[in-house]
Amino acid sequence: MTAQTSQSVTDLIHAMAKNSRVAARQLATLSGAQKNLALNKIADALLANQPRLIAENQKDLDQAQKDGLAPPLIARLALPEKKIAAMAQGLREIALQVDPVGQTIEAYDRPNGLRIEKRRVPLGVVAIIFESRPNVTADAAGICLKSGNACILRGGKEAIHSNLAIAAIIKEGLKAAAIDEHAVQLVETTDRAAVVAMATAEGLIDLIIPRGGEGLIRAVVEAATIPVIKHYNGICHVYLDKSADPDMAVKIAVSAKVDGVALCNTEECLLVHKDLAPKVLPRIAAAFREKKVEMRADPRIIGLLQDAKLAKEEDYGKEFLDFIIAIKSVNSIDEAIEHITRYGSQHTDAIVTSDLAAARKFTTEVDSASVMVNCSTRFADGGEYGLGAEIGISTDKLHARGPMGAADLCTYKYVVLGNGHIRT
Amino acid sequence: MTAQTSQSVTDLIHAMAKNSRVAARQLATLSGAQKNLALNKIADALLANQPRLIAENQKDLDQAQKDGLAPPLIARLALPEKKIAAMAQGLREIALQVDPVGQTIEAYDRPNGLRIEKRRVPLGVVAIIFESRPNVTADAAGICLKSGNACILRGGKEAIHSNLAIAAIIKEGLKAAAIDEHAVQLVETTDRAAVVAMATAEGLIDLIIPRGGEGLIRAVVEAATIPVIKHYNGICHVYLDKSADPDMAVKIAVSAKVDGVALCNTEECLLVHKDLAPKVLPRIAAAFREKKVEMRADPRIIGLLQDAKLAKEEDYGKEFLDFIIAIKSVNSIDEAIEHITRYGSQHTDAIVTSDLAAARKFTTEVDSASVMVNCSTRFADGGEYGLGAEIGISTDKLHARGPMGAADLCTYKYVVLGNGHIRT
Repeated sequence: MTAQTSQSVTDLIHAMAKNSRVAARQLATLSGAQKNLALNKIADALLANQPRLIAENQKDLDQAQKDGLAPPLIARLALPEKKIAAMAQGLREIALQVDPVGQTIEAYDRPNGLRIEKRRVPLGVVAIIFESRPNVTADAAGICLKSGNACILRGGKEAIHSNLAIAAIIKEGLKAAAIDEHAVQLVETTDRAAVVAMATAEGLIDLIIPRGGEGLIRAVVEAATIPVIKHYNGICHVYLDKSADPDMAVKIAVSAKVDGVALCNTEECLLVHKDLAPKVLPRIAAAFREKKVEMRADPRIIGLLQDAKLAKEEDYGKEFLDFIIAIKSVNSIDEAIEHITRYGSQHTDAIVTSDLAAARKFTTEVDSASVMVNCSTRFADGGEYGLGAEIGISTDKLHARGPMGAADLCTYKYVVLGNGHIRT
Repeated sequence: MTAQTSQSVTDLIHAMAKNSRVAARQLATLSGAQKNLALNKIADALLANQPRLIAENQKDLDQAQKDGLAPPLIARLALPEKKIAAMAQGLREIALQVDPVGQTIEAYDRPNGLRIEKRRVPLGVVAIIFESRPNVTADAAGICLKSGNACILRGGKEAIHSNLAIAAIIKEGLKAAAIDEHAVQLVETTDRAAVVAMATAEGLIDLIIPRGGEGLIRAVVEAATIPVIKHYNGICHVYLDKSADPDMAVKIAVSAKVDGVALCNTEECLLVHKDLAPKVLPRIAAAFREKKVEMRADPRIIGLLQDAKLAKEEDYGKEFLDFIIAIKSVNSIDEAIEHITRYGSQHTDAIVTSDLAAARKFTTEVDSASVMVNCSTRFADGGEYGLGAEIGISTDKLHARGPMGAADLCTYKYVVLGNGHIRT
């Protein structure tokens, strides 16, 4: 990808980023009230411009039809009234959240009388790359604005008309709140070289977040010289411990799969303690059959699962994002943890148990961003964690791990207060 | 640098990192007591092996003499009894620190009854690259051990005998505490290809920290596909506000330079409000003259600074790391902040003032890792902030900013406790 960087695209991105930096200085010191005003003004403008948005979106939909895009992709691209209303509502909800900027993370006095405060401040300029869904443009802009960051957004080329229209409306909202219109900028070129230019804009962009397929994320990681936070998908496990309440086990094992099969926090593999298996698997199989979930199970338990297929080695550690689940029996909690360590993606894994020691062992030894006890993996979500709007779910360990809210787009500074202190 | 990656070195690093990962799993669940035991055992072993260490260090010193290394470099390389005792003492102090692992960062109940806990956990495997000073080997190993991380250390080739000896002694200490000896590993090859192999060991190494010259850091950043935390040096400013107490202003302005001229938190540029200048600059100049600090000043104030030279444009934003200081007068606090924004390195900047509004403005608008009021920039330090031993001072904004202690080598996981919760 590096070779594709064309100078004109790089110049364009750098010019944008310089404008972002100027805007970022204003944003960092804005009052919460002014940022919230902007969020509400943008929401107003989105609603006021519904016909225009729908017309621009139609251009993308027409092109998508012409290009023969798959129906699920087209569905993600569509921006009907309902989705526009949801975008506006999302921004109003972000306005209602607590402002993370300026929060004291900790503060204390040192023995020599120096007061040390660790204070939350914006990162500066954040670049976000995403695909297909145009409503991400408004969501991402809203979270960046709330956290005092200028942002440079780059959506998928299939949504370019919709994104341009949304970006223009955001500018109106910013203007109405007297905020530098470069606070939110959309990359208008669909040239892939723009991605490389963003990922290497040292000193201009503070963070790049690629949200999308593995190919996009890999390309950004390979090119990047600035920090990247990756949002890979999840290979999530539910482990039903020997001591699990059978009713709860059945409920969670089924729901974690069927209530949203194509999401990153969906259960892809069910692990069952051998002693519990006979009590729960027939009921689980019945529920899965009813929901048309294909079961791929190990030979030891296949007899308990009517209509299951035999699992192959490659079914473990696989992200189906579909009505398919791998099911495996284990002899112990240790074997379950080993399986998760080997095949999981450190995204979200759950145990169902009534045994305190098992819960403690699982939460300590499973090294995943979210480790759940007696609830569905599907709760791994910024909204469910009370973080407000979410910029995604980080599968990285550095800076932010798991669901990322506005506070996770911040850094901190140490503010040190003395009274003539010198070191000697 | 990329072209130099040789397969055998890559294989070696990957094999080491795989051993680190196994060790990391043990480390993550060790009790604080066991980690502290290891730290003290290593300290004991360092003291017990003083003659051996001094003999191995002598080999490095002899080679350095032969190679004609500069005297300051040789001084950094030397490992006399006093430095060995300090290494041991440093490890004992790390043992006395609070264990960051397992700390609850926050915890709360959601309206639906889910309990969410954000819990501090180790990163996993940390690679640290450093130059010349062999005592970093023990310091870095100690902080990584405390934070439950396995580490792969790579020191400068000029210190290879010293580092190998220290690493062997660390292994003895780990063994005595029944900890996997791969918890701390030293890269024995001095081939530069090892650095690239470490920086690209995705899935094996979680973080790489290059500590050293700009050339080393750049090489790591260019090659890296794993997260990097950079420790660039600092271009630190002290601004003497119009309202500053003159005695305090003189004391801080002088001390921030002379109490350690070659450190990253040393004042490199002094900014003085024009109204205060006549009251303080003659006294500051006298103190600098006495300490043989060369002053490079702007024409408006040069008359107040006996023996000062005229500053050139390139003297601003320069890291002298020497007995040289740039001095500039400003018309307002805004001009001071503009200067810092333009020429500073976002490391550490200080204001001396008695005016609350000025202090508030400075701490809000200066976007540096440490922003100081009425104290010397030299306080930007992990020990001074009460973080215990320090792995360095991050000049990045992501993950950790400013002085980094053991807690900054941790990430977190969300531990979510339900009672049969499912999403619907």
